[in-house]
Amino acid sequence: MSEGSQPHDLAMTELKMTAVNRQLVLQSRPKGLLAPGDLQLKESPVPELLDGQALARVKYLSIDPTMRVWMAVDSYLPAVPIGEVMRASGFAEIVESRHAQYKKGDRATGLTGLQDYVIIDASAKQFFQKVPKIPFVSDSIFLGLLGINGLTAFFGMEIAQPKKGETLVVSAAAGATGSIVGQIGKIHGCRVVGIASSDDKCTWLTKELGFDAAINYKHPDWKAKLAAAVPNGIDIDFENVGGEIMNTVFSLMKLHGRVVLCGLISGYTKEDPGMGSLGMVIVKRLRIEGFLLLDYVSRFMEAATQLGQWKMFGKIKDRETIVEGLEKAPDAINMLFTGGNTGKLIVKV
Amino acid sequence: MSEGSQPHDLAMTELKMTAVNRQLVLQSRPKGLLAPGDLQLKESPVPELLDGQALARVKYLSIDPTMRVWMAVDSYLPAVPIGEVMRASGFAEIVESRHAQYKKGDRATGLTGLQDYVIIDASAKQFFQKVPKIPFVSDSIFLGLLGINGLTAFFGMEIAQPKKGETLVVSAAAGATGSIVGQIGKIHGCRVVGIASSDDKCTWLTKELGFDAAINYKHPDWKAKLAAAVPNGIDIDFENVGGEIMNTVFSLMKLHGRVVLCGLISGYTKEDPGMGSLGMVIVKRLRIEGFLLLDYVSRFMEAATQLGQWKMFGKIKDRETIVEGLEKAPDAINMLFTGGNTGKLIVKV
Repeated sequence: MSEGSQPHDLAMTELKMTAVNRQLVLQSRPKGLLAPGDLQLKESPVPELLDGQALARVKYLSIDPTMRVWMAVDSYLPAVPIGEVMRASGFAEIVESRHAQYKKGDRATGLTGLQDYVIIDASAKQFFQKVPKIPFVSDSIFLGLLGINGLTAFFGMEIAQPKKGETLVVSAAAGATGSIVGQIGKIHGCRVVGIASSDDKCTWLTKELGFDAAINYKHPDWKAKLAAAVPNGIDIDFENVGGEIMNTVFSLMKLHGRVVLCGLISGYTKEDPGMGSLGMVIVKRLRIEGFLLLDYVSRFMEAATQLGQWKMFGKIKDRETIVEGLEKAPDAINMLFTGGNTGKLIVKV
Repeated sequence: MSEGSQPHDLAMTELKMTAVNRQLVLQSRPKGLLAPGDLQLKESPVPELLDGQALARVKYLSIDPTMRVWMAVDSYLPAVPIGEVMRASGFAEIVESRHAQYKKGDRATGLTGLQDYVIIDASAKQFFQKVPKIPFVSDSIFLGLLGINGLTAFFGMEIAQPKKGETLVVSAAAGATGSIVGQIGKIHGCRVVGIASSDDKCTWLTKELGFDAAINYKHPDWKAKLAAAVPNGIDIDFENVGGEIMNTVFSLMKLHGRVVLCGLISGYTKEDPGMGSLGMVIVKRLRIEGFLLLDYVSRFMEAATQLGQWKMFGKIKDRETIVEGLEKAPDAINMLFTGGNTGKLIVKV
């Protein structure tokens, strides 16, 4: 879709004529889906420019799941304060500038907010970045493939480290990020399976984007279908959704599989919008590794030798809580959960 | 504690006299804590030895939180079947052998089960391993420091990769594993903070084991105390507990902190004993990495160039769902959660 280039003087004319900046202001924090009035349309005058500022006309706005989080709670960015313009990424064109780095006609993406006009100033908090005009391509590409979603897919897949022949599953696969994730997986030679919410989306993924399989999770037997689509198990989960979909994917993963935790959309419209333990894993960019001793059987002797040395030299102390009698074992098990023992809990038979 | 060595002929005498094997058999899967009768004491004859088998007298039994999981659900090992001897690690001494690798008097640890006598056969499923006699040291050390817990702490800390000056937090810190984890952290030069369930345990951790701080989570202000004990944030969480304790630790972690997910005790007595999404992370030894695009701002140009090339050469396709009009942005946000869009969702202002 080609937007075409609107002459700058026309933009200025429009500005002088209306001199009105329509803004969607956060009026109340939504419960569940947005209700009418959570965001309220307000008209403000287009602000006068100060030195160091540029005025930009917003042309395209990126609509992203993270906006629902911004409306509700502090996360990696503070929640949008009540009464302020709703935060959003957008594409805008400079219509007037007293900013050293922007001139009239320049084009940029950044946190424009949901409004007609945005002031770009020297602060870096809006993440503005100039972008070029690409012939025959809609400017909105800088919000999608060449913007947040493409970049998210690209760097997320760098974390995933896909290898040829591995199986990649991506949830919200027909979304802006998921659809690119899967295609990057194909570029790396992975078997790619997408999870999406309709048959049409699944057809798009397999017929047009080259996914090996796509599962519509609205079908009652979707779990069996997903299992059948990953006969060797899953190496990589690019997780956008969380909840039941994530749990199902986890249950089909290979031992030592990798999960890129990118989003938890299924929780964003809930009471605590995804900011439980896994939400915090995203916000803090934590790396969690599940661990079972069974994997280290062949190295037990090496470890026990080191532990024994540490004990001999007083670097490690141990303590035991001893319960006498086989018949006391059930009580001993319960002690673990009621704080009854210090150190190792042993039943002496 | 020195157990002393019981003469083997005495053990044999006892065997011939009683010829009874007391066993704790799983009668019903517990709800919450174990109730009387979930494990039932049963007397069986000591079995006759076949070729390739050894008979061992169980001396010490290891009581571990994972036993509660084994009683309830399939995890990394299948659930114990109803009517069978409850699975448990133990220390045992061979009293009679027709097994090539064991002779009378040999000592071994493995999955003995909650019983007086165990048959060791050629199968590897019991994980039996011969252990030496250490003078002046209780044999039970092979279940704790030189057994499951010490080994778990050792290899878990290998995953954690502690570095000098980093802050390590360990939950269930006064338990058999946690208390060793913290001491290994001190050996590596970490600031070590433990979380435990009583002031006595906390005193043991700081005064005897050298922890830098220990927090009793039963105190109402424990979260503030934990925050004060980690003024620079937490680099490593050695997680044994899950639930609210884990969430509190997560909220205090540094960006890009590491979590060794070793146990989720707080969930083991719940309806679904920890086998939700995080339980599966342990069972499958998954590596989860939280991911936020913000960390990659300096490399956006590199990624966009690659994405643009892929698009030009037809390796990646993108699609947009366009909603017209700023005032439609609230509806557009909801579309994300109701499956309304395919590909990138854009509002054209």
